[in-house]
Amino acid sequence: MALIVQKFGGTSVSHLGPIRRVARRVKAELDAGNQVAVVVSAMAGVTDQLVGWTRDMAPNCDTAEYDVVVSSGEQVTSGLVALALQRLGIDARSWLGWQLPVRTSASHARARILEIETGDIRQLMETGGVPVVAGFQGLSPEGRITTVGRGGSDTLAVALAVALEAARCDLYSDVTGIFTADPWIVNNARKLDKITCEEMLELASLGAKVLDPRSVRMALRHRLPIQVLSSFADLPGTLIEGTIITDVWGMPLEDDVEHNMVTGIAYSRDDAKITVVRVPDKPGVAADILAPLSEAGINIDMIVQNVSHDGKATDITFTITREDAERAIDALRKEQDTLEFEKVLSDSNVAKVSVIGVGMQSHAGVAQTMFSALAEQKINIQVISTSEIKISVLIAEEHTERAVRALHAAYRLDEQ
Amino acid sequence: MALIVQKFGGTSVSHLGPIRRVARRVKAELDAGNQVAVVVSAMAGVTDQLVGWTRDMAPNCDTAEYDVVVSSGEQVTSGLVALALQRLGIDARSWLGWQLPVRTSASHARARILEIETGDIRQLMETGGVPVVAGFQGLSPEGRITTVGRGGSDTLAVALAVALEAARCDLYSDVTGIFTADPWIVNNARKLDKITCEEMLELASLGAKVLDPRSVRMALRHRLPIQVLSSFADLPGTLIEGTIITDVWGMPLEDDVEHNMVTGIAYSRDDAKITVVRVPDKPGVAADILAPLSEAGINIDMIVQNVSHDGKATDITFTITREDAERAIDALRKEQDTLEFEKVLSDSNVAKVSVIGVGMQSHAGVAQTMFSALAEQKINIQVISTSEIKISVLIAEEHTERAVRALHAAYRLDEQ
Repeated sequence: MALIVQKFGGTSVSHLGPIRRVARRVKAELDAGNQVAVVVSAMAGVTDQLVGWTRDMAPNCDTAEYDVVVSSGEQVTSGLVALALQRLGIDARSWLGWQLPVRTSASHARARILEIETGDIRQLMETGGVPVVAGFQGLSPEGRITTVGRGGSDTLAVALAVALEAARCDLYSDVTGIFTADPWIVNNARKLDKITCEEMLELASLGAKVLDPRSVRMALRHRLPIQVLSSFADLPGTLIEGTIITDVWGMPLEDDVEHNMVTGIAYSRDDAKITVVRVPDKPGVAADILAPLSEAGINIDMIVQNVSHDGKATDITFTITREDAERAIDALRKEQDTLEFEKVLSDSNVAKVSVIGVGMQSHAGVAQTMFSALAEQKINIQVISTSEIKISVLIAEEHTERAVRALHAAYRLDEQ
Repeated sequence: MALIVQKFGGTSVSHLGPIRRVARRVKAELDAGNQVAVVVSAMAGVTDQLVGWTRDMAPNCDTAEYDVVVSSGEQVTSGLVALALQRLGIDARSWLGWQLPVRTSASHARARILEIETGDIRQLMETGGVPVVAGFQGLSPEGRITTVGRGGSDTLAVALAVALEAARCDLYSDVTGIFTADPWIVNNARKLDKITCEEMLELASLGAKVLDPRSVRMALRHRLPIQVLSSFADLPGTLIEGTIITDVWGMPLEDDVEHNMVTGIAYSRDDAKITVVRVPDKPGVAADILAPLSEAGINIDMIVQNVSHDGKATDITFTITREDAERAIDALRKEQDTLEFEKVLSDSNVAKVSVIGVGMQSHAGVAQTMFSALAEQKINIQVISTSEIKISVLIAEEHTERAVRALHAAYRLDEQ
């Protein structure tokens, strides 16, 4: 007998029919002798509508009221799924974020989960019942409703699985698993049977929208296996392994030695490139440039400092998410006199394309393959950034699909 | 300076435009120097949709989960109205039922309000802020969401006004006030400037759907004036006076002596007529017949016992709401052997038409006028029931509109 957390995304609960299917899936897991806790998203489209209403009502709205409005979607689904389970004779009950409670920080609209109290739902599960937890929401220290940001139901499901010391967290959505690249772009993209948490983390951070990176990070930290699978097909999904078995040198062991050099290709169109032109070329200038952004709570992703040509001034280029671009430029311009740069340029017509693979660590030539493949396509690389298990490049947005296809072919990802 | 509770119904908050209008209306009251607490319903149509989903999911569903689902509508509106008020520079904040809390009984889907804690919202109002309370919902002793039944936002608004010792409770909806009869049936129905709480209570109980009778009853008990008015027109509404000034004999004083004999005509199509045929004609038989219904929680409205023809058996006829009809028949049939009746007949093709007026007490001939007017129309009266301030008759449903028009004319209600 195992304890499993099942999370159902918006398309899995889009109407009453899919909700009934969800209930049967939960029952199958119970019938197999397992304990199940369920986490649900809002019905597909509902959150977008609610968010739209708050934006129309007040463009820069009070995020506490935003949370009151948008959290209602998961509330509806939790009640309906509980009813569907009861219909199958299962002792089910909904729990809202404030009821468990899911204690979070006070940062409305992007709260951090601090603690989940599981006493009540454990008790229900021990007698064969199924708790249905509304995703996405929690309770602030002030007793108000918070939400944990878009995609936060995944994070809540993983956090609940960790709190319950679950054997696995199954994330059901409309995708059948994790692919070597976006199947909408690459025809012969291949579904992966399993992937390491580290690779998934890079994939998710780099734009594969299947999973919220925060949930992968949390699973990695607690060595919790996650499974990504479709609620519409009875097919195995992709198992995201909680940990990699390594030797004493930190190198992957067992079959991972033969791990593919590259596991998948990711891309993202959410970035903007900012260039600060002609900053005085002195030690600590990058830190000075980044200080006002850090104060404004803006995260920097890629960063590159040009070689100084005249020894006096240099250019600093970095990427941030597009929605932060305007605020970043404002923050920099306010400090223009102090920082003594000439001007700030911004370009949102960029895409980030990345190759990811744990095997990369033990294979030479991965970067070379990437740069050659892009060069063959005459795609100019604007910025490069690397980590132990990924290489990312910034290119002009219009080349995205061509780049992803070329890289998928270059690393032979269609071959098992 | 007065403290006023303003309640906005579903059509007043049906879209973002009307919600902005609501915010301006609240601001006008603040600008006039008053303190305001707001209670809101769900956007028009939302509750029906949510109720429909729960019914489709499980016809006799767990009312605790029903409450989780349907209470979400008011949650959305409370957040949006708070945002709209903030947009006008007002310090506004939403409160959900569980947050105040609005303590209720544990009877899900039709909970009774026990107590409303007002400390937090009083504090906000004292500094010029406006609390926006989600209507319809409360918190059970077990810490779960309850709802107070359809129309319960009125009741919650009145209960909040009582708890805050408000000077008045303004109920905004899409009607401009209380009319002498349904304006959809009677062309020259006249809007009343004021009406006594007792009359309103009868009107509401007898089918004028403008107000939940529970809210009128509560206002009457606490002598709280209610105003019914439209949020779409800047017109005075109808003031429902909290109390009637009477002389020591309980007769209306002052201008009420010249009060119209009849204030208005109400009708309802929610009733079913049940006849228990050939019950043994012995003392206490009516009580015996009603016992199983009372145990099933079914309320009886009108009741009449026929004169026994042979001294052995009699018929008992009563009315209940249509939705209780099936359960009532089941409850009676289970006891058929004990109660020794012959059979039960049920007829839902009935309407109840009533004339209401405090002045009735001091005028003779009110009933005579009613019966003559119906006789002239050749409308057969099936059951009669009277109280100090109303006379109701049960007739075949197809005659409803003709009866209402005839009575409106007979009492000259179109004349001021």
